[in-house]
Amino acid sequence: MTSPRCLTFLTDFGLEDGFVAACHGVAAQIAPHARIIDITHLVPPGDVRRGAAVLAQTVTSMPPAVHVAVVDPGVGTNRRAIGLRAGTGILIGPDNGLLSWAGDALGGIDAAYVLSNEKLWNQPVSQTFHGRDIFTPVAARLLTGTALAEAGTEIDASELVTLSAPANRMLDGEAEGEVLSVDRFGNVQLSIPSVAAAELGIIFGSSMMIRYSRQKIVVPYVTTFGSVSPGELIAFSDSAGLISLAVRNGSAAEKLALPSGARVRIAANLASS
Amino acid sequence: MTSPRCLTFLTDFGLEDGFVAACHGVAAQIAPHARIIDITHLVPPGDVRRGAAVLAQTVTSMPPAVHVAVVDPGVGTNRRAIGLRAGTGILIGPDNGLLSWAGDALGGIDAAYVLSNEKLWNQPVSQTFHGRDIFTPVAARLLTGTALAEAGTEIDASELVTLSAPANRMLDGEAEGEVLSVDRFGNVQLSIPSVAAAELGIIFGSSMMIRYSRQKIVVPYVTTFGSVSPGELIAFSDSAGLISLAVRNGSAAEKLALPSGARVRIAANLASS
Amino acid sequence: MTSPRCLTFLTDFGLEDGFVAACHGVAAQIAPHARIIDITHLVPPGDVRRGAAVLAQTVTSMPPAVHVAVVDPGVGTNRRAIGLRAGTGILIGPDNGLLSWAGDALGGIDAAYVLSNEKLWNQPVSQTFHGRDIFTPVAARLLTGTALAEAGTEIDASELVTLSAPANRMLDGEAEGEVLSVDRFGNVQLSIPSVAAAELGIIFGSSMMIRYSRQKIVVPYVTTFGSVSPGELIAFSDSAGLISLAVRNGSAAEKLALPSGARVRIAANLASS
Repeated sequence: MTSPRCLTFLTDFGLEDGFVAACHGVAAQIAPHARIIDITHLVPPGDVRRGAAVLAQTVTSMPPAVHVAVVDPGVGTNRRAIGLRAGTGILIGPDNGLLSWAGDALGGIDAAYVLSNEKLWNQPVSQTFHGRDIFTPVAARLLTGTALAEAGTEIDASELVTLSAPANRMLDGEAEGEVLSVDRFGNVQLSIPSVAAAELGIIFGSSMMIRYSRQKIVVPYVTTFGSVSPGELIAFSDSAGLISLAVRNGSAAEKLALPSGARVRIAANLASS
Repeated sequence: MTSPRCLTFLTDFGLEDGFVAACHGVAAQIAPHARIIDITHLVPPGDVRRGAAVLAQTVTSMPPAVHVAVVDPGVGTNRRAIGLRAGTGILIGPDNGLLSWAGDALGGIDAAYVLSNEKLWNQPVSQTFHGRDIFTPVAARLLTGTALAEAGTEIDASELVTLSAPANRMLDGEAEGEVLSVDRFGNVQLSIPSVAAAELGIIFGSSMMIRYSRQKIVVPYVTTFGSVSPGELIAFSDSAGLISLAVRNGSAAEKLALPSGARVRIAANLASS
Repeated sequence: MTSPRCLTFLTDFGLEDGFVAACHGVAAQIAPHARIIDITHLVPPGDVRRGAAVLAQTVTSMPPAVHVAVVDPGVGTNRRAIGLRAGTGILIGPDNGLLSWAGDALGGIDAAYVLSNEKLWNQPVSQTFHGRDIFTPVAARLLTGTALAEAGTEIDASELVTLSAPANRMLDGEAEGEVLSVDRFGNVQLSIPSVAAAELGIIFGSSMMIRYSRQKIVVPYVTTFGSVSPGELIAFSDSAGLISLAVRNGSAAEKLALPSGARVRIAANLASS
């Protein structure tokens, strides 16, 4: 296997400070020809689930790459630093679940390592900025020919910290999920794949029943929100293959007051059939 | 003509999600050596005129490039995807007017194509993310030697959707325009070129009369806002050659309560001459 | 000395407009193979001290580079444009103090030049956008083999505008500093190096007395904020080697209502020893 030539980077560092740039600089020193693709640095501070979701939905569009992700409220504690080989990618970050959904998205974890080889780090290592001092230097060295196995000790993938999977189960005539994310457009992404809608007999052009809190609403299920009236609430299958709710020229998240993590159920709208 | 080696990218996708990065990843897979320059991804969602204005004012600073722009409230409808050859650039995006002012800025549209060659797309194409699945893959392939003519069917440029030009006309002793944009500094950019001010006899160091809503104010016309007192409102010729209003160390947009699109007239201040 | 191949870029231009991209485009035209690392473009408009602090704390992580910084409320006035050689870097920007702390961080200024050679600029030069028309073109040309000495006239470094250093002095049993910056996490960075804490006998695992305004608080001094309870206020030695205050899963800046520039004193907490 040839080394990947691309490094992707996702954090909760924000863009106001020099933290992201310091990591870019460290990578450029070690691997001057590497291409760096920033996924996002606006994960809400410490929100590991949100970081994990964005990472998992983006890595599948990437070329073979080393993916560095740092949403790390436990930095400086005894949480481990890990490297995972998964499909055409290598995932580098803290062992707090951040990488686990991306591992699944890349086809499953083939090998897991604790990053214990301090020779690959930038010394001295600060207590609070492992992105600059551990994760990025290790990742950049992997781009210059160092093997992941040299970065530390192999462990069994079953020992890794994992996030609970987003709610997603089939009930009697319903699919239950949760609000996985709200994007810039106010679109509400549910952890219910559009294949579940198909199994429930909900077809494009019909409508679905959506239940949440004590609300029950009927929403058209359409192929795209470009085809509906401004202000109208609709459901569609989004670019990640999940059911999302949208308001054309508006925010579904605001209209429904649905926060991340809220439980939602969908069902066929029998009245319409 | 050799292929451009640079891809520029403007959208309303925001920076919180992985949408921009997914497009970068797709481009990197197809054209690993391409340089990508992000213009902005903070166009207000769906604001085609704002996107068109930023694009037109930026492409003139770029090397020969394929410019991808996606502000696309009609994604998934029957709006067309287009590619335009204009000067040293190729513009790729939806046929909703977003590209038209940039075409003018690059010297006019030399050839227009509907992007109908699905072989250049990334399959399967989602209904809602043509940036990732159509626009970026086509653009990246143009960087690797594919000719624009291979991307689809040539159409007459007169068939393209265009935006109405920003208001800009000479009246009796006045120039009328509109607020074209408000930048981060609160500077209010008018769609009145500084050559119009010259035609009206307004010279640097004098002042101009500005009328909007039912207001009438007199404002110094200066070469730069560095030379005035903090808090003072001034007019100047901005880096795009347009009349802009600024408050040093403050926001002209706030001070005047002038929103994007508002009509404004300027005239020489006869009292001062 | 070989030319650096990397250009870093820090401004207060924001990310909503095309200003940053226009500079990238100009650089790409002149030096197509240069790597550009954006440090940040979200310096608060006109905040020279904040820009200087972020720049100084980031350049030390960079490879040999030309560093362009533009926070320039005096653009268009007679403030000078300068280029400084400092260690492995060259600093390019306005002569308003923005570059001075970075010069120190890179090991001190070895040579200073006024950028007076207009042949290296992009003509015509606008009155308000020297980032695009002077600073970036000069920097890009330095990456293609032009010597800094060709860019203008050497001056004595003592003639440069400098910022007053952040407060930092040892008093009787106390160290006095100021709030240097507040980062995205609400961490309050003081201009007191952690070596000063050591001199005062404050050791990790003990606590320190902090005085500001008329407040006096006792705060644990820990190696990392990962090891404390959510909501707890602590002091630590940050990734720049300075004393910072943090609230785990919260904002120290909000909790203490400490703005940038506020005076703060630290001392050993005698009650705890």
